[in-house]
Amino acid sequence: MTVQASRDGQAHDTSDLWAVVPAGGAGTRLWPLSRAGSPKFLHDLTGSGRSLLQQTRDRLAPLVGDRVLVVTGTAHRDAVAAQLDGLPDDAVLAEPSPRDSMAAIGLAAAVLERRDPAAVLGSFAADHVIADPDAFGRAVATATAAARDGWLVTLGIEPTHPATSFGYIHLGEGLVGHPGVQQVRAFVEKPSAATARDYLATGDHRWNAGMFVVRPSVLLGLLAEHHPAFASSLRELAADPGRLEEVWETLPRIAVDHAVAEPAAAAGRVACVPASLGWDDVGDFDSLADLLGRGAADGSGPAGPLVLGDPDLVRAIEASGLVLPGSGRVVTVLGLDDVVVVDTPDALLVTTRSRAQDVKALVAELKQSGRPELT
Amino acid sequence: MTVQASRDGQAHDTSDLWAVVPAGGAGTRLWPLSRAGSPKFLHDLTGSGRSLLQQTRDRLAPLVGDRVLVVTGTAHRDAVAAQLDGLPDDAVLAEPSPRDSMAAIGLAAAVLERRDPAAVLGSFAADHVIADPDAFGRAVATATAAARDGWLVTLGIEPTHPATSFGYIHLGEGLVGHPGVQQVRAFVEKPSAATARDYLATGDHRWNAGMFVVRPSVLLGLLAEHHPAFASSLRELAADPGRLEEVWETLPRIAVDHAVAEPAAAAGRVACVPASLGWDDVGDFDSLADLLGRGAADGSGPAGPLVLGDPDLVRAIEASGLVLPGSGRVVTVLGLDDVVVVDTPDALLVTTRSRAQDVKALVAELKQSGRPELT
Repeated sequence: MTVQASRDGQAHDTSDLWAVVPAGGAGTRLWPLSRAGSPKFLHDLTGSGRSLLQQTRDRLAPLVGDRVLVVTGTAHRDAVAAQLDGLPDDAVLAEPSPRDSMAAIGLAAAVLERRDPAAVLGSFAADHVIADPDAFGRAVATATAAARDGWLVTLGIEPTHPATSFGYIHLGEGLVGHPGVQQVRAFVEKPSAATARDYLATGDHRWNAGMFVVRPSVLLGLLAEHHPAFASSLRELAADPGRLEEVWETLPRIAVDHAVAEPAAAAGRVACVPASLGWDDVGDFDSLADLLGRGAADGSGPAGPLVLGDPDLVRAIEASGLVLPGSGRVVTVLGLDDVVVVDTPDALLVTTRSRAQDVKALVAELKQSGRPELT
Repeated sequence: MTVQASRDGQAHDTSDLWAVVPAGGAGTRLWPLSRAGSPKFLHDLTGSGRSLLQQTRDRLAPLVGDRVLVVTGTAHRDAVAAQLDGLPDDAVLAEPSPRDSMAAIGLAAAVLERRDPAAVLGSFAADHVIADPDAFGRAVATATAAARDGWLVTLGIEPTHPATSFGYIHLGEGLVGHPGVQQVRAFVEKPSAATARDYLATGDHRWNAGMFVVRPSVLLGLLAEHHPAFASSLRELAADPGRLEEVWETLPRIAVDHAVAEPAAAAGRVACVPASLGWDDVGDFDSLADLLGRGAADGSGPAGPLVLGDPDLVRAIEASGLVLPGSGRVVTVLGLDDVVVVDTPDALLVTTRSRAQDVKALVAELKQSGRPELT
């Protein structure tokens, strides 16, 4: 039995918890480091020596041991298996093609429903950073207990700034019998800056990081309420995996938020564990620089850009920002503040932290102008 | 006999003119394109398909034919010979080590004094750009006629802006018998910005581009007045080239300006041909961008940075400046104005046009910090 000790001395049982790890998404705004063929989750973005996928597994290991299902694209199955050395062979589910998160997580739920009927499923993306794994473990254990009682339980990240790039969770009353858990009034879309400031001021909103814990049968039951054929197809696939190629292409492309979480919240069936985890989705080079800067912010280092990679490959004079030396070449930067330089063997990016969100426009341009192989 | 027709219909004889082309200097501020091992003069900096050295020869060919002596470092002898295919074998003089311009040009003068006692020598750097070769030819022919009469004749470039990075030539009275030639009062050091503006306002100063025309025996005679042993050594070397290695290291390191031109001007023995040649020493990436921008300034091209190299390798969004894609990789630039990106197989430079002068500090840093092989 896997036990996680909480700060208040209570023991939280997660022995029935399975981690489902969707490993998808190209991380386009992290191009040219992250590519369709070598996506963000396979990269070490923190200089720890472990990829985001490996860090995700490390963080989950005390909670679930080997009870892990990674759902990834066929193209990445081998890379995922290699990075997660030691997992059972059937721990990686390969999607024939990307069909958004409901298909990916729903397939894992249907497989789990058959494999371990008593299981609780927790879904955690493969490409996020969590600075406080102990707080994460406590929150997941709390969520697991509520999920066991039939709730769809999300983790709600305490906002550190009025972000406009995340959806928010509107909290309601506390959940009776589950200290640390609150009901969810609604999921709300990415807000305006003014609305985001209101959310922070009132204190009753949390960032939706896409992490949730639920019984597989509850998840598929909620799906079946609005998409019965979808839920049936997933259960058929779990019963007869040989039909995956044939059935997969018929599944709707829809996010789990829209297919299940939002209607379930409207029906009063979603709960939330508010938590402060040091969570970061590392969405672009600006947030990566923030993340690395927090780690380096002891004030003792030399001035200059943050470096992710071999610092001996970077020479800078009167420069700040972020440099990723990724081709073995020396990268020199002179007289530029908040610059971003990402050096890879076949493509180079030079931009600024303030334009980091727009890297996706460069990727679109490359796709349109005859160099899609670089994306 | 080589004849250059001038605009006024006069024929100017340059049949006794030999071109001496000092091909030295690493072009440090053009790093990482220009290196000690692959210096500026070997590179095509104008996108013409011809290196600066080749363009120098092309410009001189109507004036001197094969009467060319290139003085370069031993390390560059083969590269120079390869680029100047068709020149006689003895057209390249190799310096065992760099010993500044007096030794280089003085050796060529001593060799010429023996090889062709009637010769006039014109010294023209291998790494400058001249946009108007016809005007150059006319100015050189005019200078040759004055040099034949025993003058040390410089070409004085009409200033186009109050540059503080060049020395200036202070013009005096016209030279009797030589229309288009003026006496030189003095050479003046790089001025302050205010002084440079005064120079332009009075109109009696020209940029010193280091181009001069003189009889070899006059040059060596002027040298002998202040540095008799130096002049003797050079003449001994010309008589016995086998002693080059032995004698070379004993020669003073001094620029021809200080050793000869400045004292000769003080003695009233220097003349100047003022000229407007479209001259550019392409000293750094800012001036290179200016140069390429003039060529591209037809207003019809797409916005974006200037590209020296294959434009298909550059993708830019809301960016301006200069990109040199030199490794075959795609270079992308997003949201940066007046940026300079120089991409080579082993080193990358990211800076701005306004900091282009300081690239030499990066090179110094690389030398000191364990990567001298990149410089």
